[in-house]
Amino acid sequence: MKFNILCKDENARVTVIETERGLVHTPQFMPVGTTATVKAVTPEQLKDIGAEIILCNTYHLYLRPGENIIKRLGGLHRFTGWNGPILTDSGGFQVYSLSSLRKVTDDGVEFRSHIDGSLHFITPERAIKIQHALGADIIMAFDECPPYPSSYKYTLQSLKLTTSWAERCKRAHSGNTSQALFGIFQGGFYKDLRTKSVEEITEIGFDGYATGGLSVGEPKELMHEMIHFTGELMPEEHPRYLMGIGDLIDVLEAVEAGYDLFDCVMPTRNARNGTLFTSRGRISIQRAEFKDDETPLDPECSCYTCRNFTKGYLRHLYLSREILGMTLNTIHNLTFYFTFFRKMREAIMNKEFSKFKTQWYEILKDNFRDTEYVSR
Amino acid sequence: MKFNILCKDENARVTVIETERGLVHTPQFMPVGTTATVKAVTPEQLKDIGAEIILCNTYHLYLRPGENIIKRLGGLHRFTGWNGPILTDSGGFQVYSLSSLRKVTDDGVEFRSHIDGSLHFITPERAIKIQHALGADIIMAFDECPPYPSSYKYTLQSLKLTTSWAERCKRAHSGNTSQALFGIFQGGFYKDLRTKSVEEITEIGFDGYATGGLSVGEPKELMHEMIHFTGELMPEEHPRYLMGIGDLIDVLEAVEAGYDLFDCVMPTRNARNGTLFTSRGRISIQRAEFKDDETPLDPECSCYTCRNFTKGYLRHLYLSREILGMTLNTIHNLTFYFTFFRKMREAIMNKEFSKFKTQWYEILKDNFRDTEYVSR
Repeated sequence: MKFNILCKDENARVTVIETERGLVHTPQFMPVGTTATVKAVTPEQLKDIGAEIILCNTYHLYLRPGENIIKRLGGLHRFTGWNGPILTDSGGFQVYSLSSLRKVTDDGVEFRSHIDGSLHFITPERAIKIQHALGADIIMAFDECPPYPSSYKYTLQSLKLTTSWAERCKRAHSGNTSQALFGIFQGGFYKDLRTKSVEEITEIGFDGYATGGLSVGEPKELMHEMIHFTGELMPEEHPRYLMGIGDLIDVLEAVEAGYDLFDCVMPTRNARNGTLFTSRGRISIQRAEFKDDETPLDPECSCYTCRNFTKGYLRHLYLSREILGMTLNTIHNLTFYFTFFRKMREAIMNKEFSKFKTQWYEILKDNFRDTEYVSR
Repeated sequence: MKFNILCKDENARVTVIETERGLVHTPQFMPVGTTATVKAVTPEQLKDIGAEIILCNTYHLYLRPGENIIKRLGGLHRFTGWNGPILTDSGGFQVYSLSSLRKVTDDGVEFRSHIDGSLHFITPERAIKIQHALGADIIMAFDECPPYPSSYKYTLQSLKLTTSWAERCKRAHSGNTSQALFGIFQGGFYKDLRTKSVEEITEIGFDGYATGGLSVGEPKELMHEMIHFTGELMPEEHPRYLMGIGDLIDVLEAVEAGYDLFDCVMPTRNARNGTLFTSRGRISIQRAEFKDDETPLDPECSCYTCRNFTKGYLRHLYLSREILGMTLNTIHNLTFYFTFFRKMREAIMNKEFSKFKTQWYEILKDNFRDTEYVSR
């Protein structure tokens, strides 16, 4: 993996991550392909709408079909038919958020599968080994994610664990030159612990760095404060990834703070639930007013969905629970995201990010923030 | 609509139906797009795999979203984004098979919606008016479909009704030159009544003719006997459509008997249920033996699914209930059907249909007939 910073506008930056399977232009959004498919779209459709890199979840793929089956079938790229770059998370967050009976020890985490209740034990070494079998271009260290709120004492202990696990991940990864390994910062919402985490993790040394442990239930203001605080601390010469965050207002803050990579289920999950993003705001496609609306979702969008289908048709598909509706909505929402990120890169190149942020903040604030929203 | 017979091999024939929106080469299979979408695939994917014409169900579209909404949104072609030829059935069969509390009078049929239980009354004139609003290239007369078994007396009465409704449909359609209207033969499983129906319906005169009332629970042998019997009777100089039948063994019989057009949910519904058609027989993708199978579904198939994905991946998608699995399976099964029909046309052109039928009969007999099969 090579990394080049092409342009900076204050802390916001345009970079290129060069992997063996293609370039990733940042700021970039990674669609989530939890179970080795970005839900409801083909790899061909993903390419067509401009996806550069997708994320797959190690936790899910470890449980089903199992990393060794994917390895025998040629690794994640061959398995999914997606030939571009792939990032796998380490499973740390999913163990925290999805499994039951989680028991953390110094050595690793014991948990029960959310699918069948079976018992599993994952160590840092095992998390790396699983990710080696999966074969993504970028893999993540195994971390421990403290819930919100957590005491200073708990957060400090958890941080020490994450650091020691990061060292073990680095060791377990030594000799592997085909996959980049990113370290993860934790430290909850205590600034001194965040600082300590950045110091310890960068000391170990990774190909890129991620901030984890945000968007776990904290108020937005606190999240934004931590995004800016951690952004300042992170090393410049490596990719910076803000894990699990994709609400576009949060993205604006994070890009301003110098983050490069993002992932979130928001565009895809909302699409399947009939919530669509447009240049004029959020649309719930089931609303009666759209029943004979012959206009496309977004007159400014040139995606397959907007070129060929009316809101009236999309509403009909939604009410009829038709699979095609989910596919067309996903194509549109992801296109909206990719377009937003492309425009953001252009704004940075033109040294106009601040203007871009102000403009979009207004649009997003009035039309996108809503309790109907499904994030994470 | 223009109709040309290009070639005959005994009774089997290759024809071209010329519509304003494109050519239909027969024998041809029409994928079923019940609610204005062939389930799980985009119109673009349908075109790519070679679909020439799709069928939509008037009954479903009348109930939801309503024909007037589709009309306001520019008709079925604009609504669905499918710009090729479309055929709509009249709703007669669905009223018979899906609705409850069906009450047939000389004037029409009263029934309750399978969606919300609401009460509806459809007359032949109304069925034609609905199909005018939908705007398909080929529309169907409104008929009454007797169940199996039915007495001679009931079948005769029903036949008289179908004939009188056919006359009313023809009148209701007069002046409309942009849509072709096909008549439907009924008569159950009584040969003299089938003969009578053909005489009466052809006497009225339509742009094409269909045989209805088969595949309603009768033994296969009886169905095949009636397919051949009706095939002999049908006028040569018009398209011949065998409604609702798509089991490939039945198709072989019907093409031999001189039928041109077919529709059936079999390839699409089976795809969604994980049953896949290959040149070596039927596959249930969920079987454990496929878990690390790195071969495509069918080595002889060149569809998007077979070019890019392994059986192991398709099994994983199926077990994970992923939408993409339904899409990829549908692409494959429809490709299998279109390839089968193309080869059938080639065999007829080469005067080798009899050989083709014998060869495929053996393959299909051993590997395709199965109680797991979902037809109609």
